[in-house]
Amino acid sequence: MPYRPQLTDAARPATITIAAINECGEAVPTQIAGEHPLTLYLDKREIVTLMTLGAAPEALAIGYLRNQRLVSRLEDIAAVQVDWETDSVAVTTHVQVDDLDGRMEKRTVTTGCGQGTMFGNLMDELDKVRLPEDTCLDEDTLYGLLDSVRRHESIYKQAGAVHGCALAQGADILMFIEDIGRHNAVDAIAGRMWLDGLEGGDKVFYTTGRLTSEMVIKTAQMGIPFLVSRSGLTQMGYDIAKKIGITMIGRSQGKHYLLFTGHQRFRKAAAPAPA
Amino acid sequence: MPYRPQLTDAARPATITIAAINECGEAVPTQIAGEHPLTLYLDKREIVTLMTLGAAPEALAIGYLRNQRLVSRLEDIAAVQVDWETDSVAVTTHVQVDDLDGRMEKRTVTTGCGQGTMFGNLMDELDKVRLPEDTCLDEDTLYGLLDSVRRHESIYKQAGAVHGCALAQGADILMFIEDIGRHNAVDAIAGRMWLDGLEGGDKVFYTTGRLTSEMVIKTAQMGIPFLVSRSGLTQMGYDIAKKIGITMIGRSQGKHYLLFTGHQRFRKAAAPAPA
Repeated sequence: MPYRPQLTDAARPATITIAAINECGEAVPTQIAGEHPLTLYLDKREIVTLMTLGAAPEALAIGYLRNQRLVSRLEDIAAVQVDWETDSVAVTTHVQVDDLDGRMEKRTVTTGCGQGTMFGNLMDELDKVRLPEDTCLDEDTLYGLLDSVRRHESIYKQAGAVHGCALAQGADILMFIEDIGRHNAVDAIAGRMWLDGLEGGDKVFYTTGRLTSEMVIKTAQMGIPFLVSRSGLTQMGYDIAKKIGITMIGRSQGKHYLLFTGHQRFRKAAAPAPA
Repeated sequence: MPYRPQLTDAARPATITIAAINECGEAVPTQIAGEHPLTLYLDKREIVTLMTLGAAPEALAIGYLRNQRLVSRLEDIAAVQVDWETDSVAVTTHVQVDDLDGRMEKRTVTTGCGQGTMFGNLMDELDKVRLPEDTCLDEDTLYGLLDSVRRHESIYKQAGAVHGCALAQGADILMFIEDIGRHNAVDAIAGRMWLDGLEGGDKVFYTTGRLTSEMVIKTAQMGIPFLVSRSGLTQMGYDIAKKIGITMIGRSQGKHYLLFTGHQRFRKAAAPAPA
């Protein structure tokens, strides 16, 4: 049984319904994605305010701290308490975080958004990442995963305006998290992986969003060797993926894909024998 | 002739070409969007590092400072110097920015991205925004604008992975800026509006991205009463739009749209008379 900190269970309803007027002049009830500020406190110190769908706020808080390298293991976290009355989440630890001021001083505003925030020296840490080489993804499994994603119930289908991320083992989706912000969805997956005691080495990370630098960095930080997206990629996403040797596949939908980097871990299906 | 600070002209190539492998096992040259870090210094003080396409770095720097309310008018800026050798942009002012430390202390990580950054008390300032009421957008003009956007040459068509924003007057696009991050594209438009001496009151702001809180806030800050998007909206985007009374239209493409807020400034085309 993996260690579990004390946790609230404070997911919010994912959508609300408003009235819009369409081009025929008709009032149409329209589902829209929820969006709430959530201020994160680490041992009573204010770290950041995230704007989130609120579907997995505890996992989001833990994953944010994990991906920003402000907490180095789940066992250091004593409790995670979300309180929507004050739009806040309080994380308390068993240990003091070393040099919190120093780590929070350097901000990089990242891309996905154009203007996200990464504390500390994440880029430096990438040099330490070693992704496993004794694993591979074959084409049929990729197609199976794309089909699983297509059939998955989603807030996106109801309301749009969200990004989704999935953690998969082969073609099976282990968890699927959507959020207003793509970073939040990734962070919440990182948090839930810790809570469920899951390693990344034999997993595939799927995102509906673009393959930008920080999407590649975060996937690598979680130790996941495969990154698959429905969308395209940016130059820095490509450069970092090449450098760390992650297997990155974009523009993947139905039976189409583009393999960008890490070819050595991908197996194409054998062509059918000629009749 | 509007005031102009000293400016470099340091746009970067928008795309590079890499080789990817498709599902047929063929190597296909694939255009991808450029992505570069750009560290912004205001009077020698480091403010933030933006990840950008680099298509309009001077306008981006000015617009970032404008939208974060770190500079209150263009005339206060003496020079904007982009240097890609050091991935930096140095903005020097004629006046000292008051209370820079105080303004930079409060960070809100916004949504578009999930984790963007807004300094200071932008939400408070919204109470001061008054959008003009003596202006209207009719349905045919909206359709004309959607057609202009559709026909516009874009990096998105070549390489994907970027968001686009346009400033329009009626159906005419005055400027169209794309960037890796949606926030950057909006900020660059804000910067260019200052440089070109343009007011927002008779303009329409178009974005390919979602209508999140900060998209609505920034449009309102630029004094623009019309906000149009191809995508959907989030709850906070809706709440803020209602509060400030902006005319917001989403899911608009071809001859379809949903009018969400600010109905009083929108005129539907008269139905054709029965034959």
